[in-house]
Amino acid sequence: MRVSKIGEFGLIKRIKESIRTDSSVIHGIGDDCAVLPFDAKRYLLYTCDMLVEGVDFKTSEDFCLVGRKALAVSLSDIASCGGLARYCLVSLGIPRGINVKSIDQIYEGMTALTNRYGVNIVGGDISRVEGKIVIDVSVLGFVEKECLVLRNGACIGDIIFVTGKLGGSILSKHLTFKPRIKEARFLVKNFRINSMIDISDGLTQDLHHILEESKVGAVIYKELIPLNKTALSFNEAISSGEDFELLFTLPSREANRLALRKNKIFTSIGQITNKSPGLSLIKKDGCEERIKPAGFRHF
Amino acid sequence: MRVSKIGEFGLIKRIKESIRTDSSVIHGIGDDCAVLPFDAKRYLLYTCDMLVEGVDFKTSEDFCLVGRKALAVSLSDIASCGGLARYCLVSLGIPRGINVKSIDQIYEGMTALTNRYGVNIVGGDISRVEGKIVIDVSVLGFVEKECLVLRNGACIGDIIFVTGKLGGSILSKHLTFKPRIKEARFLVKNFRINSMIDISDGLTQDLHHILEESKVGAVIYKELIPLNKTALSFNEAISSGEDFELLFTLPSREANRLALRKNKIFTSIGQITNKSPGLSLIKKDGCEERIKPAGFRHF
Repeated sequence: MRVSKIGEFGLIKRIKESIRTDSSVIHGIGDDCAVLPFDAKRYLLYTCDMLVEGVDFKTSEDFCLVGRKALAVSLSDIASCGGLARYCLVSLGIPRGINVKSIDQIYEGMTALTNRYGVNIVGGDISRVEGKIVIDVSVLGFVEKECLVLRNGACIGDIIFVTGKLGGSILSKHLTFKPRIKEARFLVKNFRINSMIDISDGLTQDLHHILEESKVGAVIYKELIPLNKTALSFNEAISSGEDFELLFTLPSREANRLALRKNKIFTSIGQITNKSPGLSLIKKDGCEERIKPAGFRHF
Repeated sequence: MRVSKIGEFGLIKRIKESIRTDSSVIHGIGDDCAVLPFDAKRYLLYTCDMLVEGVDFKTSEDFCLVGRKALAVSLSDIASCGGLARYCLVSLGIPRGINVKSIDQIYEGMTALTNRYGVNIVGGDISRVEGKIVIDVSVLGFVEKECLVLRNGACIGDIIFVTGKLGGSILSKHLTFKPRIKEARFLVKNFRINSMIDISDGLTQDLHHILEESKVGAVIYKELIPLNKTALSFNEAISSGEDFELLFTLPSREANRLALRKNKIFTSIGQITNKSPGLSLIKKDGCEERIKPAGFRHF
């Protein structure tokens, strides 16, 4: 059976079911980060992301932006869990003929982010590949125990929010997005956030992850979803990947408190319902449409 | 300028010189593991290794052994620093047409090792690649502060040891070697080990890393170097990669204590000298030959 038949998420589910971990693991495979013991007050967050030339970035791209993105996607995972990133390792697979300048640029792009977010590059590996460049970055971070947020905590009645605007990322910000660490820290420090994820695969796909892990359903309102100017269409905006915005849910009282802040970066787009699992889109005329998760998939 | 011009180690040196870290980092780029703060008694060890199809394993290889090796190489790094491995992340770059069974086998090979060494697979990433399979595994481990060993502690007069036998790995054990965690723990718990590295690039190359980091020179004795039956020649045995044996140095008194154990796995092969940096090979007739580091290089 080909991987393309069970798809990326089918494969992850299969791997998750086959792996046993011991009792020290707070949270293993299946969230944005693994959660591990650290000290009395904090957990370790541990995550990695692999970028591949021709899939995650074009060959013609500015290598500085490629390096930046390779780190930024993992910082976005740390943000999703409410934490701060501190250390990272960089594995580079590069073809023999590559220029040293390109490698310099990859690291320049990364160090621009490490300086901003207080992250240290502490090691890595360099391998020769015969084809395309591969960059795999793993990141270690910390989160105060009371600030940890996962995908599985959404409760019936929670209001669903996103940061920023969605869609058209491939034409604009997929290489230059700011990982939402600042916003995530503001949220987990000041509000009871029940669930959170970053939109890497597309709004409906990532919301589906929250619904599945939390065993709830949801409605979202078409009119409320904030679209980027570069969004190609509404459907593109809710199903295309690489927005790297935060998608989170919090109790309605907390949502009211958040609304009082009049911070334009946070937009409420729907609610967690006690209906059967699944997602509905409510249109302007009140019509409700069941929508299946759609988004970027590798296979 | 092409990467092939400055080589793998030139590139690592260049990256190391361009990276700044903050004071929390105990040891960053340039050893087998990064060393990070953990608690009053222990450090975190953090390392990663990337394997590429066609470079580190053949396409025709048993995927179970490929998965095993992908984890084993990082466990060998943890051993080099005297620690125990506890958690790992697995990034897989796989082509669209790959069979699910192959992925199952990769994980089977890894879980055989995680069970034996008490390691938990806690997450990872899956990406599509257009060409060859890429597996990058990062590992987190721990080491008691008094047990940490790096490359930079070799002292004049230290005796140089290796574990096991060298050479011919590509014909025999490069896919099936046992990471020397048990042996490393025995050493760091019972002896004062001044420096240690795993032989991944070849004896002379890896000894050169110890000499360079410790700013010392060394002599090794041709007759003392334990050769594998599969070694192609003496030169192959001291310069071919993928032995994954430990290479370590300890004061001569400690070496005498180690010799008393009559443990055949440890063989003394030479001594750290106060001569100018560099490595000499002493032959049976007493002739001394300066030898340049040679071993596996990606570029």
